[in-house]
Amino acid sequence: MNQIYSTIPTAQLIAELCVQNGIEHVVISPGSRNAPLTITLANHPKINTYSIVDERCAGFFALGMTQRFNAPVAVVCTSGSALLNYYPAVSEAFYSNLPLVVISADRPPHLIDVGDGQTIRQPDVFKNHILYSANLKGDYHNSEDQSILGFNTQETHKALQTAIWNQGPVHINAPFDEPLYNKTDKLNIKIPKLNSLQPGKTEIDATDFIKSWNSSVKKLVLVGVNLDEQIEEEVLKMLSSDPSIIVMTEITSNISDKNFFTNIDSILAPIESEADTEKLFEALQPEMLITFGGLIVSKKIKKFLRQFQPQSHFHIDPREANDTFFCLTQHFETSVNSFFDRVNSSLNKIDSSYFEFWNVLRLKTLQYRKLYKNEIGFTDFAFYYSLFENLPQDETVHFANSSSIRYANLFDSKREIKAFANRGTSGIDGSTSTAIGYAVASQEPTTLVTGDLSFFYDSNGLWNNYIPRNFKIILLNNAGGGIFRILPGNKEEDYFANYFETTHNLNAKNLCEMYKIQYTEAHSLEEVDKELPLFFERNETPQLIEIFTPRLENDKVLLGYFDYLRKHIDFQSVLNSKSIESAPN
Amino acid sequence: MNQIYSTIPTAQLIAELCVQNGIEHVVISPGSRNAPLTITLANHPKINTYSIVDERCAGFFALGMTQRFNAPVAVVCTSGSALLNYYPAVSEAFYSNLPLVVISADRPPHLIDVGDGQTIRQPDVFKNHILYSANLKGDYHNSEDQSILGFNTQETHKALQTAIWNQGPVHINAPFDEPLYNKTDKLNIKIPKLNSLQPGKTEIDATDFIKSWNSSVKKLVLVGVNLDEQIEEEVLKMLSSDPSIIVMTEITSNISDKNFFTNIDSILAPIESEADTEKLFEALQPEMLITFGGLIVSKKIKKFLRQFQPQSHFHIDPREANDTFFCLTQHFETSVNSFFDRVNSSLNKIDSSYFEFWNVLRLKTLQYRKLYKNEIGFTDFAFYYSLFENLPQDETVHFANSSSIRYANLFDSKREIKAFANRGTSGIDGSTSTAIGYAVASQEPTTLVTGDLSFFYDSNGLWNNYIPRNFKIILLNNAGGGIFRILPGNKEEDYFANYFETTHNLNAKNLCEMYKIQYTEAHSLEEVDKELPLFFERNETPQLIEIFTPRLENDKVLLGYFDYLRKHIDFQSVLNSKSIESAPN
Repeated sequence: MNQIYSTIPTAQLIAELCVQNGIEHVVISPGSRNAPLTITLANHPKINTYSIVDERCAGFFALGMTQRFNAPVAVVCTSGSALLNYYPAVSEAFYSNLPLVVISADRPPHLIDVGDGQTIRQPDVFKNHILYSANLKGDYHNSEDQSILGFNTQETHKALQTAIWNQGPVHINAPFDEPLYNKTDKLNIKIPKLNSLQPGKTEIDATDFIKSWNSSVKKLVLVGVNLDEQIEEEVLKMLSSDPSIIVMTEITSNISDKNFFTNIDSILAPIESEADTEKLFEALQPEMLITFGGLIVSKKIKKFLRQFQPQSHFHIDPREANDTFFCLTQHFETSVNSFFDRVNSSLNKIDSSYFEFWNVLRLKTLQYRKLYKNEIGFTDFAFYYSLFENLPQDETVHFANSSSIRYANLFDSKREIKAFANRGTSGIDGSTSTAIGYAVASQEPTTLVTGDLSFFYDSNGLWNNYIPRNFKIILLNNAGGGIFRILPGNKEEDYFANYFETTHNLNAKNLCEMYKIQYTEAHSLEEVDKELPLFFERNETPQLIEIFTPRLENDKVLLGYFDYLRKHIDFQSVLNSKSIESAPN
Repeated sequence: MNQIYSTIPTAQLIAELCVQNGIEHVVISPGSRNAPLTITLANHPKINTYSIVDERCAGFFALGMTQRFNAPVAVVCTSGSALLNYYPAVSEAFYSNLPLVVISADRPPHLIDVGDGQTIRQPDVFKNHILYSANLKGDYHNSEDQSILGFNTQETHKALQTAIWNQGPVHINAPFDEPLYNKTDKLNIKIPKLNSLQPGKTEIDATDFIKSWNSSVKKLVLVGVNLDEQIEEEVLKMLSSDPSIIVMTEITSNISDKNFFTNIDSILAPIESEADTEKLFEALQPEMLITFGGLIVSKKIKKFLRQFQPQSHFHIDPREANDTFFCLTQHFETSVNSFFDRVNSSLNKIDSSYFEFWNVLRLKTLQYRKLYKNEIGFTDFAFYYSLFENLPQDETVHFANSSSIRYANLFDSKREIKAFANRGTSGIDGSTSTAIGYAVASQEPTTLVTGDLSFFYDSNGLWNNYIPRNFKIILLNNAGGGIFRILPGNKEEDYFANYFETTHNLNAKNLCEMYKIQYTEAHSLEEVDKELPLFFERNETPQLIEIFTPRLENDKVLLGYFDYLRKHIDFQSVLNSKSIESAPN
């Protein structure tokens, strides 16, 4: 490939600083104002570029790549409202701590707000949800002006370094003036080697943590979103072998151990309707809460811990600590691995029956889940049960919001897959694009599990030339936002169907034909059990299987599950046991 | 319909203040946090509600309704990234002066940034492009707290009044706490009758304008976007009958007169390549420039007037004046009708040959356009020629960005249609949704003319239950962003096709099947001329006709047109004439 640069110095420096900062993938959307960047990046031997027209999809596609690489990926667009279409992905990156680098071309400031086309107020436009906004100055082909170039260099570098070290979205806005299409085959500026802006390490004072750990007989470890293979096995083993510790994980934690509590809601939901709710929750209430990872899906665990707060709550994360339960004691600004590496030798294993008692109940929920499945008809619940029986080991699975990821948390007990979901903002706006971006980055077998509203919302996610042959979509079509039926509200009234559930009679067949995706459908559990294994075997071409479940049954069967557990599992046994140590008050 | 209200007072007051401020149409996207608003609005006898899942489309759909009503239309969404998907429509409304009212449900402030799902920083999120942000306080079911309710009432009213009087987008952000689904059949608060916040009238001092008018022999009136029937016939007649005035209009001006110059670029483009460019432009250079209406599409007229500036530039608009040509003399903050009503008696008709000479050339461009059309093959150019021959009189036509509206300006000389385009930001992100929103509001025959990138970008625009039977789409499919081929750049290289033109081989057939839209296609001028009249006759069901034109011919034929005009029209005659008065320097 011939290296070609735009003659505009700032376009050259943006490209070269991207390379210097380890950016290898750039998603470009079409436009004329961004021609200097497009010309330079698309012809750069060290950068892989992708062309995606809809910027909303391009943003999420790049986000999916960052989930895989855990390194910055850039998106580039032209001036005007194009940029605003990145905002959903930017906010997701902001709350999921993913290094999405937005680079927008702009008109020179004297052409803003004078009536020119495709012109908006781009500087700081993502202000509420961005780690850094580099508002570059225009150099307008004048490479002699070192002060402008120096400013642009520093600002661009600062933005890229912020994305890397603080793990989140940044925005670089670059004004360009015409002519935009002039080219050269060599750099006309000197790109300096810039220093890393890695922040210094914060001192960790773990005295209170250690004291609390060594005196608490009821410790709860709650783990949110982690990228793949972030937590060392040694740490997990230590946590899983301590009788005073319950580790609760969600599917997106991407950690596994046979002792971890994977189906949080199956424990909490039945307790919520028990006569002795309060006493049971008190028995479960931890003295010490340790959290790490990103956001938590389960509303029930949040509600429980907000009401039955631990005496201390420690959060371990290099960057951020949400005070999710309004009782945060201390935030350790380091990785989980380094933290336990540092404190491990001071931690004692405490004798306790906390784990053991709740674990008996946990195992029973798994047992009764199977029994319940045999009692119900073909519904979302039955499908997800079957899905987790059929998922190939080590498959990467992206779950859309919101019912898909919620169901997944009920069924995944084996933890043999890698799981992802856009839980930063929990939007339905980019699940397909994110999954495809991830799949392109990994080239490993990747499946998206999605509901119908999420799927149709991001149908443009299929509009690109990069979908790998082993990429798969499982579309659960229950003719609307079935999850709304689980919430209170007058489900029998017209306005509920129209404005909450938003029922429809669409299917994905036509979209699959349009985008050359092999299409299968299933309308019963028999068809699912027959088709799913075949579906996972085929890898010649991208595929979608559409599962049609009955709209009006799903909510009843799901809520019935928690009732069933409550009826069949003897939660009262916890209260009758004298050996669960109660927390000192 | 039974009136039902949410029990949450702020939801009640938002609904009632919307009604009080004349809002009759509200587009709702699904969610749970916005349940208090959805319940109240969907059951309100004075409000028509529409359900649209994709907020990006919902925003533009509502925008299209404001284009018709010239009155505020609201969109309502849940918390989280849902809101951000409105931003493209918000920025379009901002630059097109359309009263789009965004109402977002939010979590209470103590649940922001603590790790709850679907939660972002909503207050002031549109800061760069909004006329007013009402960041309401949560009343949390406590209707006793009059200070919160008083604040929310004032802020909501102020936002709505701003949308009305300043004609632009506003944002009302309303935090709600659970329970969200409780209902009542009557208001539990008293809604006050609030006063209009209409701004006082500004005094107009037109002394300089009148002086300039009565002494200038070369006056150019340039008219941008107007909604339908905004300018009185009397004003138009006065302008068209003065020999010292050239009126240049774009199709989106929605005004017509046989003397108006409708095809600006057909005059300017040939001059640009004449040997005597400068002298010809000097002959065309006005002494006085009068502008009104919204944004101008033609880049050529902007370039010309920035280089050959008038001695004075007056802009007439109740709200805004862009200094598009960097020589704005005075802004009259009033409507065009009132302005001329006030000054008319002081204006004299000046003897001049300014109009007459250029008009001869203008008429020739129309003549040679027809001759040129007979010399070319089937291309975008030929199609648009044919389209304007076939468009039914009084049809409302929405033109997508950017080639559709540009071609339309070349061909529309009869001005028998109503024309719209999203020229505020000139984005390709919402043309279909806007056109459908307009059509729903008007219920009159409406046609969208769009290119393939715009059409596929906003394909979700078809995902709603409201498309009228007489709504039509003409999709010009040239397999990519053909307009980029007109720009400079290496059109023969791969990266050009991939990253600028973004070629594809999609067609709309599958989408039409999916959304139950009758589909026709045409691959030649013969087919176009046969199908178009039939297409316009059918009104039983929404329809789309897809016109396939050859990707690699279109740019040559378009650029060839301007060459052809230059070769055949004697622009030099202008220079040889002594009777075009030159402007005094």
